Amino acid sequence: MTAPIVTLTTDFGTRDPWVGIMKGVILGIAPAARLVDLSHEISAQAILEGALCLEAAVRFFPQGTIHLAVVDPGVGSARRALAVRAGGQYYVGPDNGLLSLAFAQTPEAILAVELTTTKYHLSPLSRTFHGRDLFAPVAAHLASGVPLERLGSVVTDPMRLVLPAAQRERDLVRGEVLSIDRFGNLVTSLTEEDLGSLASSALVVEIGDVRLGAPVSVYADASPGRLGAIVGSTGRLEIFAREGSAHARLGLGCGAPVVVRGV
Amino acid sequence: MTAPIVTLTTDFGTRDPWVGIMKGVILGIAPAARLVDLSHEISAQAILEGALCLEAAVRFFPQGTIHLAVVDPGVGSARRALAVRAGGQYYVGPDNGLLSLAFAQTPEAILAVELTTTKYHLSPLSRTFHGRDLFAPVAAHLASGVPLERLGSVVTDPMRLVLPAAQRERDLVRGEVLSIDRFGNLVTSLTEEDLGSLASSALVVEIGDVRLGAPVSVYADASPGRLGAIVGSTGRLEIFAREGSAHARLGLGCGAPVVVRGV
Amino acid sequence: MTAPIVTLTTDFGTRDPWVGIMKGVILGIAPAARLVDLSHEISAQAILEGALCLEAAVRFFPQGTIHLAVVDPGVGSARRALAVRAGGQYYVGPDNGLLSLAFAQTPEAILAVELTTTKYHLSPLSRTFHGRDLFAPVAAHLASGVPLERLGSVVTDPMRLVLPAAQRERDLVRGEVLSIDRFGNLVTSLTEEDLGSLASSALVVEIGDVRLGAPVSVYADASPGRLGAIVGSTGRLEIFAREGSAHARLGLGCGAPVVVRGV
Repeated sequence: MTAPIVTLTTDFGTRDPWVGIMKGVILGIAPAARLVDLSHEISAQAILEGALCLEAAVRFFPQGTIHLAVVDPGVGSARRALAVRAGGQYYVGPDNGLLSLAFAQTPEAILAVELTTTKYHLSPLSRTFHGRDLFAPVAAHLASGVPLERLGSVVTDPMRLVLPAAQRERDLVRGEVLSIDRFGNLVTSLTEEDLGSLASSALVVEIGDVRLGAPVSVYADASPGRLGAIVGSTGRLEIFAREGSAHARLGLGCGAPVVVRGV
Repeated sequence: MTAPIVTLTTDFGTRDPWVGIMKGVILGIAPAARLVDLSHEISAQAILEGALCLEAAVRFFPQGTIHLAVVDPGVGSARRALAVRAGGQYYVGPDNGLLSLAFAQTPEAILAVELTTTKYHLSPLSRTFHGRDLFAPVAAHLASGVPLERLGSVVTDPMRLVLPAAQRERDLVRGEVLSIDRFGNLVTSLTEEDLGSLASSALVVEIGDVRLGAPVSVYADASPGRLGAIVGSTGRLEIFAREGSAHARLGLGCGAPVVVRGV
Repeated sequence: MTAPIVTLTTDFGTRDPWVGIMKGVILGIAPAARLVDLSHEISAQAILEGALCLEAAVRFFPQGTIHLAVVDPGVGSARRALAVRAGGQYYVGPDNGLLSLAFAQTPEAILAVELTTTKYHLSPLSRTFHGRDLFAPVAAHLASGVPLERLGSVVTDPMRLVLPAAQRERDLVRGEVLSIDRFGNLVTSLTEEDLGSLASSALVVEIGDVRLGAPVSVYADASPGRLGAIVGSTGRLEIFAREGSAHARLGLGCGAPVVVRGV
């Protein structure tokens, strides 16, 4: 039997050794854990960006995987520390919504505990680096077989991010830009399901004042230099520019309105 | 017995979770695979750059290693998907030349198959992310022991990149700049063997209109701030600037002519 | 029994395959080694920066870990190559001080050997890439059980970096900026112990001509946009700017004087 996978998602970057230190802590407790980086380049303290990263990734990991995530502007304050079991996978991180888009994909009930059992933390606990002192050791204890219930006391109200719901009006659906990826693509709140809910299969996409035409099915279907829309590999509608940044080209960012219209 | 190594080379960057998702897919199929990143910072859609990266790396990996590479501007088009066995190692990626400099280093015959056996792919297959849906699962099935021949039908004409051949003239050899590395070093098409073919052991290197003197054997042999030439650790002649970028200093890039002359 | 952890710290970056190549060499020799990256973004040839990275990290790794580090401006020159055992862990790298802050944390005696036993190196040994040809294979042989003593001849004078000692004067302690992290935080030579040595528990921190007030215990305690001081997770006093770069704000860098005063 192979030991569980522990994934890591942070806003720590990779220049300083913080991520490596978390891995040292994990492997000291769970020597056979298999470590996979999702991203350490989440923008500083950008909880939504981290939550979207996890949401896109977790369904591709096997049962039993433990997702450790630290984007934690409230470290050292009263925010709770959480571990969650949902859909056969585990989530460990601060109770600020970071984990919530991922575990909300699960139809079944989730079990969440506040991480109050201090024997599973490093001691002394720093006030500035809970990734190392609290979340990494808890993830490692889960990986080495400690039951979730022993990590603390059950809570029923983990913080959940609420994404803007698609606004359906007759022959159109309205959404907005949620985040901007490294290529300058604008990731929207509209999903493949939202587009499928329109009666017409001939669609046009509008962002701000710009009309983009129908979503393409591969990036290469847009002409070089042109803007386009596509349902990306995360299942969300994205606005992109061939060989450029849609963000820079349009001067639009998070919150910009997006409309998809049946024609 | 340890499970095979799977290396990963992409132009996906490390900010978004695409590489982590591919690793989730691989470990779901081949739990004991050992994963090694070669580079995820290949310039977007730069097939030659990816091919040079693989060419430099593969000989340092043990027999049985599987090299998974995705620089794939044609994803979703008719380009074929390939797996190749060459010199005791395996290559998985799009049939666009990306794998070809690496497997061409092998003196023996290679075996290439087009990845047509869909049971070894994820289903449904997206049109935008074959790294996740096709190449990662195929690499993982190879790692877990599926024979290459079962992955699809044999092809005899995998696409091969052809690098400009060194032009030999009496006492000199001509080549050109192939790529620019992160330090601004200019990597040329001329190899140690090309230089060895000159009768004289006293050499001068010229790039564009600039004469650089003899290749040095360590970077430190060039004076601070000066340009120099060296046979780099890939076995190719490189033009560098001590404490600077040769690319910026010379204003020269890919295709710039390089001459090495016996004196 | 799980095989040892090998950590890697270099100034190679992650765009080129150099780090992946070192991992291929290691796994070819020690197939079960568990690899952990500390940083590959040490500034080029910045030995002190690499040494501080290792100093911060090694205490979080279990006994038997092997720390491989290559920041090596003298590669190809007469500088020695070292392996060191200290505090139950191992260090492998050039003898230029890079390893010294880490192994100097150990109260016990250390054992250092110069890497003269060539059968544990790749052959031929390049003059430009000892990371691949010398340090990686030596680390791997240590990981696979070769005793340190067989790697070469004992040396008693490994090069040691000497950090500026804290200057104690009545009610104050003087130090200086040692390095600048990726957020523009200024990491100083003053440690938690240096601050604890002041009689007063009410402290103010001064850097250059700027008076910052008392060290805070979490970043969030400073007002947005304001400068602050904190004992960071490395145990060193750091100067930071909430939502900005202290380095840019102050126009100060390495060597800038820092004073902590009891009030």
